[in-house]
Amino acid sequence: MQNIRIVMVHTSHPGNIGAAARAMKNMGIGDLALVRPAGFPSAEASARASGADDLLSSAGVFPTLADAVADCRQVVGASARLRSISVPVVTPREAAGQAVAIARARPVALVFGRESSGLTNEELDLCTSLVHIPCNPAFSSLNVAMAIQILCYELRIAAEGAPIAAPKPQSVASVAEMEGLFGHLDQALRDIGFTEAGRSRKLMRRLRRLFQRAEPDPEEVNILRGILSAAQGRKSMRRE
Amino acid sequence: MQNIRIVMVHTSHPGNIGAAARAMKNMGIGDLALVRPAGFPSAEASARASGADDLLSSAGVFPTLADAVADCRQVVGASARLRSISVPVVTPREAAGQAVAIARARPVALVFGRESSGLTNEELDLCTSLVHIPCNPAFSSLNVAMAIQILCYELRIAAEGAPIAAPKPQSVASVAEMEGLFGHLDQALRDIGFTEAGRSRKLMRRLRRLFQRAEPDPEEVNILRGILSAAQGRKSMRRE
Repeated sequence: MQNIRIVMVHTSHPGNIGAAARAMKNMGIGDLALVRPAGFPSAEASARASGADDLLSSAGVFPTLADAVADCRQVVGASARLRSISVPVVTPREAAGQAVAIARARPVALVFGRESSGLTNEELDLCTSLVHIPCNPAFSSLNVAMAIQILCYELRIAAEGAPIAAPKPQSVASVAEMEGLFGHLDQALRDIGFTEAGRSRKLMRRLRRLFQRAEPDPEEVNILRGILSAAQGRKSMRRE
Repeated sequence: MQNIRIVMVHTSHPGNIGAAARAMKNMGIGDLALVRPAGFPSAEASARASGADDLLSSAGVFPTLADAVADCRQVVGASARLRSISVPVVTPREAAGQAVAIARARPVALVFGRESSGLTNEELDLCTSLVHIPCNPAFSSLNVAMAIQILCYELRIAAEGAPIAAPKPQSVASVAEMEGLFGHLDQALRDIGFTEAGRSRKLMRRLRRLFQRAEPDPEEVNILRGILSAAQGRKSMRRE
């Protein structure tokens, strides 16, 4: 991730630079480059960075995109429009996978254009691929910091490789424990007057399925049986 | 996507509501619900919405999260912390896949908490799963609109790539029906002497998870409540 650089070109709202810095740091990316930013540094950028000020103070500021990406092996341009030019257009997921692979050896830049008009043709010429974020065709203009958030999120997923830890395996009650529960439930339903003996088979089948779907653990089976005992009126305790 | 609702709980910065509306519309999601938002409607929200004002004017405003999700089949809470509770914790990709599948039949809510402190334990109790956005552990607090952007992006990817086969239509109890069951259960546990008033919160949380995992249909909820009533009746009968 150290070899991945986010480049913002001619950004006109300082708040977007701050929000982008926060988004980057949230995802563990630290290299921000700014090409002729308007009104930077600014208090608004720092406020929106919300603790990612270190990225703002270490950000490189460059006169042109060519300068900002001079050392990079790959330059990926973010584009809202699907242009008819001869570079590959990839999804954010594909772009992130490729960037993480290449960044093991050389710096990779992801380039985001002006809020109003994106990247110029000259800037697009510097890009080795374009990334297009899927969106609603009727409302396709993403905020630039949001676009950076999505790409940085995909970069983090790609760098982590595997999905995060699956939910811990649950200790599920044994068949014997479940049968103990069902026998107890059947008796309790009669004791509290909910069913009559011999007339509860269909109901019991349904309740069995319900509790089987829940996959209770042994402790939960004990809790349920404790409740049944309480409903039965703790007869045995009283007798003592 | 029409059955997917984004719920923002106690949002304190109107700009975040506007940015979230824009992020939603960019991804083709239109149903925004607000639980006790601070300073809404506001000019700042409209400015940040940047053309997604229609989502702001049609947004539902609710006094509690329970009201905002009453008709939903699934409630997914966004959580920065990985809590030690027994609901499934899923990745944004998994959450989106599940939500898109379920939303073919019933509304699904994705819930985002306060900027400062996320969701309360009571709000988390309403969630049937939690989604955790992978991030830098040393700087893990995402802006709420950014988190919404990531989830809406994954929802769009999931919807575009969704398999044709719909899940088998399953009539599952709504949040309101489940809350009715839990309220009844809580009272019944006291009536039969299993718990004392004010001392059942941890137990109730566990029982909620158990019955939520079972995904009972409305008729099964009625059966369970019938059993609870019978258990309550037996106790009062005995008193007589």
